[in-house]
Amino acid sequence: MPVINVKMTHEDGGATKEQKEKLSKGITELFAQIFNRGASSAVVIIEEVSTDNYSVGGKSITQIRNEEKKQTSI
Amino acid sequence: MPVINVKMTHEDGGATKEQKEKLSKGITELFAQIFNRGASSAVVIIEEVSTDNYSVGGKSITQIRNEEKKQTSI
Amino acid sequence: MPVINVKMTHEDGGATKEQKEKLSKGITELFAQIFNRGASSAVVIIEEVSTDNYSVGGKSITQIRNEEKKQTSI
Amino acid sequence: MPVINVKMTHEDGGATKEQKEKLSKGITELFAQIFNRGASSAVVIIEEVSTDNYSVGGKSITQIRNEEKKQTSI
Amino acid sequence: MPVINVKMTHEDGGATKEQKEKLSKGITELFAQIFNRGASSAVVIIEEVSTDNYSVGGKSITQIRNEEKKQTSI
Amino acid sequence: MPVINVKMTHEDGGATKEQKEKLSKGITELFAQIFNRGASSAVVIIEEVSTDNYSVGGKSITQIRNEEKKQTSI
Repeated sequence: MPVINVKMTHEDGGATKEQKEKLSKGITELFAQIFNRGASSAVVIIEEVSTDNYSVGGKSITQIRNEEKKQTSI
Repeated sequence: MPVINVKMTHEDGGATKEQKEKLSKGITELFAQIFNRGASSAVVIIEEVSTDNYSVGGKSITQIRNEEKKQTSI
Repeated sequence: MPVINVKMTHEDGGATKEQKEKLSKGITELFAQIFNRGASSAVVIIEEVSTDNYSVGGKSITQIRNEEKKQTSI
Repeated sequence: MPVINVKMTHEDGGATKEQKEKLSKGITELFAQIFNRGASSAVVIIEEVSTDNYSVGGKSITQIRNEEKKQTSI
Repeated sequence: MPVINVKMTHEDGGATKEQKEKLSKGITELFAQIFNRGASSAVVIIEEVSTDNYSVGGKSITQIRNEEKKQTSI
Repeated sequence: MPVINVKMTHEDGGATKEQKEKLSKGITELFAQIFNRGASSAVVIIEEVSTDNYSVGGKSITQIRNEEKKQTSI
C-alpha cells in the first residue's frame, strides 16, 4: 500500500489514457518486485500541471519550451 | 495549524459543496478534539482526481469501476 | 481509496499511538460516511514535522510557542 | 534541486502568468541565496485550488470570503 | 522534470540503499520511455513512514502486521 | 493561507534554524507582496530528505555528490 504521486507537466494535449495506465502499472510492478509487497494495493496518482505553473531554475516550462523552439528553428 | 490534504477520485459528478464542507469541518473538529489545537487554524485541502489518473494495484479506478459494473449486471 | 495526508507539528513529545489511531480511524469513518466508499481502503498518512520546520505567517512554530509562553508567564 | 509546492486558492480569476513567474523566480532565487544551490534546478509547482475545496478552521474559503463581504458592506 | 513522490512504510529495518536506487532508477526509466522526456531530470523522492503513522481502512499498518502474524502462527 | 511545502536534501549537517527561518519568512513575504494576501496566515513546511532517498535523473544525490567530489579532486 505505498502511495506514489506523480506530478508532470500537461503537454501536447496531455498524457493519454494508455500512457497513464502504462505508468501506473509499471510503477506498481516495479515496487512490488523490489519490496515484495504492494502489488494489489499500491496507489498511484498522476497529476498533470499547466506548464505555466511548473518551473525549473526559476523559469516556467512554458518559457523553457518557447526557448527550445526558437533554438530549433534557427 | 495542521495541514490535511485529501486526494480522492472525481466520481458521479464530483463531491458536492455540502459533502466537502462536511468533510473539512469534520476533520478539523476531530483533530481539535484529539490534539486540543487547530480548531480555528487547521487547513483542509480537497483534491478531486480523474479516475483515469488514479490507480490501485496497477489498475485505474476507471477500469476497476467498469469491471464492477460488469459483475453487477451479470 | 482516498489518500489523506496529515502534516502536523511534533510537539510535547509527539502524538501518541492512541491519538494517531483515533485520528486515522476517525477520518476514515467520516469519509466513508459522507461518500459511501473508502471504509476498508482509505489511506491515512500522518507526518509529524519539527516546529523549527513549520511556520505560519513567516514565523516558525518554535518562535510562536516561545512568544505564547512569555505572554502566559507575565 | 529542491522541490517547492505551492497550494493556493484560485480567486479573482486566478493568478496571472506574471504573478506565477514572479513567485517561482523569487522562491528559486531566495532558496539559492540561502543554501547556495538550486539556482538552475529548483522545481516550483503552483497548484490553484477552488475556494470550495480549501478550508481554514473548518470553514471553506468560499464561506469565509462571503462573510468578509457581508461585513464590508455593512 | 516530473516529480515523483513515493510514500511507503518503514518496515524490516527500512528500504536498503540498493532498493531505493533500483526504485528511483526504474521509475525514471519507465517515465522517460513512456513520455520521451525526464530521463536526466526526473526527481524521485522516497519517504519512509512509521507503520504507526500509516493506516489503511482505519487500521494502522502496525496493527495490520500484528494481526497477520497471529494468523500465520495459528 | 497558501500552503508552501519545501522538500530539500539534508546535506552538510542539515539546514540551520536561521536558514529555515529566512526561507519561511522570505517565501511568506514574497507571496504576500505578489498576491496581497497570506502575510499572517501562509503556512511553510520544510522537509529535509536523506540524499539516499532523493534522486535526479535516476541517480541518488548521494551518488551525484560522490561523483562531484571525485571530479573536483582530480
